[in-house]
Amino acid sequence: MSSTYGENILVSIFGESHGSAVGVTVSGIPAGITLDMDRLKSFMERRAPGNSRYSTPRKEGDEPCFISGVVDSVTCGSPITAIIKNNNTKSADYGEIAECPRPGHADFTAHIKYGGHEDYRGGGHFSGRLTAPLCIAGGIFIQILEGKGIRIEAKILEIGGNAETPFEEIDRAKEKGDSVGGIVSCEITGLPVGIGEPIFHGLENKIAQAVFGIPAVKGIEFGRGFDSARISGSENNDVFCCEEGKLITETNNHGGILGGISSGMPLTFNVAFKPTPSISLCQNTVNYRGESVELKVKGRHDPCIVPRALPCVESAAAMAIIDLMNIM
Amino acid sequence: MSSTYGENILVSIFGESHGSAVGVTVSGIPAGITLDMDRLKSFMERRAPGNSRYSTPRKEGDEPCFISGVVDSVTCGSPITAIIKNNNTKSADYGEIAECPRPGHADFTAHIKYGGHEDYRGGGHFSGRLTAPLCIAGGIFIQILEGKGIRIEAKILEIGGNAETPFEEIDRAKEKGDSVGGIVSCEITGLPVGIGEPIFHGLENKIAQAVFGIPAVKGIEFGRGFDSARISGSENNDVFCCEEGKLITETNNHGGILGGISSGMPLTFNVAFKPTPSISLCQNTVNYRGESVELKVKGRHDPCIVPRALPCVESAAAMAIIDLMNIM
Amino acid sequence: MSSTYGENILVSIFGESHGSAVGVTVSGIPAGITLDMDRLKSFMERRAPGNSRYSTPRKEGDEPCFISGVVDSVTCGSPITAIIKNNNTKSADYGEIAECPRPGHADFTAHIKYGGHEDYRGGGHFSGRLTAPLCIAGGIFIQILEGKGIRIEAKILEIGGNAETPFEEIDRAKEKGDSVGGIVSCEITGLPVGIGEPIFHGLENKIAQAVFGIPAVKGIEFGRGFDSARISGSENNDVFCCEEGKLITETNNHGGILGGISSGMPLTFNVAFKPTPSISLCQNTVNYRGESVELKVKGRHDPCIVPRALPCVESAAAMAIIDLMNIM
Amino acid sequence: MSSTYGENILVSIFGESHGSAVGVTVSGIPAGITLDMDRLKSFMERRAPGNSRYSTPRKEGDEPCFISGVVDSVTCGSPITAIIKNNNTKSADYGEIAECPRPGHADFTAHIKYGGHEDYRGGGHFSGRLTAPLCIAGGIFIQILEGKGIRIEAKILEIGGNAETPFEEIDRAKEKGDSVGGIVSCEITGLPVGIGEPIFHGLENKIAQAVFGIPAVKGIEFGRGFDSARISGSENNDVFCCEEGKLITETNNHGGILGGISSGMPLTFNVAFKPTPSISLCQNTVNYRGESVELKVKGRHDPCIVPRALPCVESAAAMAIIDLMNIM
Repeated sequence: MSSTYGENILVSIFGESHGSAVGVTVSGIPAGITLDMDRLKSFMERRAPGNSRYSTPRKEGDEPCFISGVVDSVTCGSPITAIIKNNNTKSADYGEIAECPRPGHADFTAHIKYGGHEDYRGGGHFSGRLTAPLCIAGGIFIQILEGKGIRIEAKILEIGGNAETPFEEIDRAKEKGDSVGGIVSCEITGLPVGIGEPIFHGLENKIAQAVFGIPAVKGIEFGRGFDSARISGSENNDVFCCEEGKLITETNNHGGILGGISSGMPLTFNVAFKPTPSISLCQNTVNYRGESVELKVKGRHDPCIVPRALPCVESAAAMAIIDLMNIM
Repeated sequence: MSSTYGENILVSIFGESHGSAVGVTVSGIPAGITLDMDRLKSFMERRAPGNSRYSTPRKEGDEPCFISGVVDSVTCGSPITAIIKNNNTKSADYGEIAECPRPGHADFTAHIKYGGHEDYRGGGHFSGRLTAPLCIAGGIFIQILEGKGIRIEAKILEIGGNAETPFEEIDRAKEKGDSVGGIVSCEITGLPVGIGEPIFHGLENKIAQAVFGIPAVKGIEFGRGFDSARISGSENNDVFCCEEGKLITETNNHGGILGGISSGMPLTFNVAFKPTPSISLCQNTVNYRGESVELKVKGRHDPCIVPRALPCVESAAAMAIIDLMNIM
Repeated sequence: MSSTYGENILVSIFGESHGSAVGVTVSGIPAGITLDMDRLKSFMERRAPGNSRYSTPRKEGDEPCFISGVVDSVTCGSPITAIIKNNNTKSADYGEIAECPRPGHADFTAHIKYGGHEDYRGGGHFSGRLTAPLCIAGGIFIQILEGKGIRIEAKILEIGGNAETPFEEIDRAKEKGDSVGGIVSCEITGLPVGIGEPIFHGLENKIAQAVFGIPAVKGIEFGRGFDSARISGSENNDVFCCEEGKLITETNNHGGILGGISSGMPLTFNVAFKPTPSISLCQNTVNYRGESVELKVKGRHDPCIVPRALPCVESAAAMAIIDLMNIM
Repeated sequence: MSSTYGENILVSIFGESHGSAVGVTVSGIPAGITLDMDRLKSFMERRAPGNSRYSTPRKEGDEPCFISGVVDSVTCGSPITAIIKNNNTKSADYGEIAECPRPGHADFTAHIKYGGHEDYRGGGHFSGRLTAPLCIAGGIFIQILEGKGIRIEAKILEIGGNAETPFEEIDRAKEKGDSVGGIVSCEITGLPVGIGEPIFHGLENKIAQAVFGIPAVKGIEFGRGFDSARISGSENNDVFCCEEGKLITETNNHGGILGGISSGMPLTFNVAFKPTPSISLCQNTVNYRGESVELKVKGRHDPCIVPRALPCVESAAAMAIIDLMNIM
């Protein structure tokens, strides 16, 4: 089902980059939860553009406006809907996309899928702009999880292959009019043992489904991930030990998940982001009539979206966990 | 929802390793499809144990018995249920697990989740045995997809980090009583442009959700995957060109998916399998009372499940694609 | 899942009577459908209050504002969200409900369910006001269905037990400060044979689930309904005949549905509405502290909501049918 | 989704009347519940044919065989699957249906829907036989609900319009080779306040969706139902009073549901069953080639299925309530 997530909760994201607003509806959140709106705003600002030299200066003013489900900052039990107005949209910048799909974007696939009726302006519904409503939902979920002692933290592991001085890679790409991707690591602590359902609704399945909802994600691995495919079972197995009467594991190659279910150890995963497809360099490509064109993506774009993606990864993870927990 | 997959179709897997049978119900398959039962059997045999020196000699006889939805090998429109009897199960072998969770298995997490009521014998519902009903469903989906010109092929990319002579790693692990994992690459060709839904129901989301349903999977990457996080946008972007009136891309770093939607290029992804957690070597671990024990997993086990996992990866991918296509 | 409907489409209704807006998100509508916004507005007006002497004079101005999924009145493939602002809300009128649940309303059940955090103003999310977004969705569905030759028409069958001069009952109730209910009949023509899924997703199941989403509905019957329970099989069975090469039935006691699936005959059903629970008469009831109170519901209320319910019944039926048809 | 029910639980029914077995899979039942298999068997026997002079003598031996999810009569947390073998099926009796749809049955609609590939024998997946697996699931749910003090009881209200001596109507119909329907009333007591979700997932919506899954059901009404459409608001409103510190209502016209949510009063509803469409009388109808035929349904059939339908109604209601309650 397009743009929705969840079975116990339901998160439904709507809006296009250059429509009047983007937003989200969340069903299944219990009544009586007090939302810290200042914290939510701070959380949203981590994702918002224009807050650092590494991100696009387009200032969006990502303030969520709650239109249902919340009375005086307290949830009232009915579906929560919040929208963010799209103020600063210059549709004129995007006229060219109507004719010529940008490499690395969803312009072409959306064009075919929707028979030419897609909202192509700024990528429409496929824009990174749609991670703003994801972060509204995620910011709420994170507050609920923290109330249960569960904490989620995403960090930059490397950018452009550089783990030592990652931000130098952004400067370098920016100078060239190019872009760069990176890898984000995420850790979730405080998760009780037993969260996750067998086979298709385990933690890996659900987190992966959520995280691939962030544009530019091309890979995910849990615990030791791809590296575990290269070591022996005796090295990879995490043996149990007993600490203060609780079973834990001595090592954490399994990343806190066994059989899709939380083991009580920190849940760890890494996410690979491809470089931003919007670059200032000229690209030799073709338009929908098959004619060769030299495309130069207009406007100013992030040379790297990885720093702004951290709250998105946290939001996706929080959403998956809230959906698997019995919070009602 | 435990052990189910899909929105347009519904795949529901049931059974435990040492119960009377494992099986699957599939809803949403059109009436009038003739199933090639011999091909299905051959497909199942690729997964079945005992068919090569690299797999466990336990012979299961994985012949699916259809109890609904199929009349004279033709689908009749109602839900399809098939079961495989569990003949050769020695429950006595597994008594120890009741007290001592095996490292790397779901014994511990299931024990806590189900309050000690889990069917621990052979891993119960978390056993690799449950990939047999997945392959029944997958084998059917693959036949349907091939009727539409869509082909899925999974291959071993490397085992134990060895891409040149992968099977030597299995021999080596077997000799030591140890195990080894590996990486599987999968390619899907013939997919029309436009399959996949935005944000949370794109091809990556859906394939990832399905593939993590195979025990031992710890990572997935699409197209150039984690490697794309290390190159520049100008290198990673696949520019469009025109071939016989159709837009294609010159390179395929995007792995056939843009914005979650198929681009018409081959869909490619890699899957990381951890080493089989069942090894013959002694492991120093603890039991549920927190006492140190020396565990030696009984029975004979695959030193590497990667060869048998290939039809499982194909099945998971086929399931995701069938669910996203409009086949009714 | 709270306030959502559908498997192939997803309709998600949000808002509270006295919040800033009510609205709806609809996923799963194909791209390229031109919406007739004037017709939609006319359709909405049939439901809106203040348009006749039989309805409350509170003028709401139910004009939908589309914030996603529609570009220049054409669907673009992404989720459609429309909201209606709540302009004319006097929260002061409803202070008393906070303490004293109105008989026949959801005040009490919502109060317990949501632990006192419910938005009690005007019934909050349980208000009849929430049928406005249902009619936005329904109005769109009806336009799509009419494009396929399918027509839905709801009529008043009787009001207050009076089938001859139903509107006299409304006048009578109004004079007394009382209210009155009624029965609506609905007919759907042009439906092809074969719509509906077995057992729990047949036309009856799906239409009933949708129609009970309209507040005040207390019963539904299909075809000859309750009356068929009183006649013999030989009388009730509709025998087949052949007309212009097509199989039809001579009579239509089955109301166009056999085994949950459309037979090609007109689909007919009746819906029972209880009298509006808001009446001007004093009611001796109790408050949440268990103290006897004399409640007089303030404001001006419909003596009968049945006339305004007709487009709601049509919307619910259209929603069920769209969900069961393969429109993508 | 064909033949499935539920969001928190998932009930999936499979099988055809003359296939090898019918069965059901139930996901979402907690581990550690001890099932009373004798009580389940007794419950199933109320539905089984051949147990009274009012039902068909075909003896089916409806003993459920559990193949997953239950170990030593205790649920183990994984999906529960049970099947009932179809022993006593004479397919030869049904050859005629392949050519000539029986009036009042789903033969015709299934034939068109499935393009002639339907399993027509005995009505296939649309047979009343499929209520046997519904009763397996229902019998389990009822045991769980009773453990929480919730009781469900269905009773015959009238048969063939006769409320005084209902069974005389069955004898009368049987003598004539005809059939007769009836009305079942159902009462649920012990339900806590607050069960049910707004708009489309209220108790009425969910119970109706479940109950229309029983073949031959043509209507449902809650509380005073259709009759409430004929009285005034002041008469229909149930005013609150206080009893032992709890708010209850003095009357129960609302049938224990306000706003879709349980009020704590007994939940009451009535269900209309049409007469069994299988009758021994000759029927003048047509075959699929449009030729007039005189159809005489072979075999021996229930003159009235209402007595056997009581456990089916209880099962459907229990399923709806379990799905709405937070039982995990």
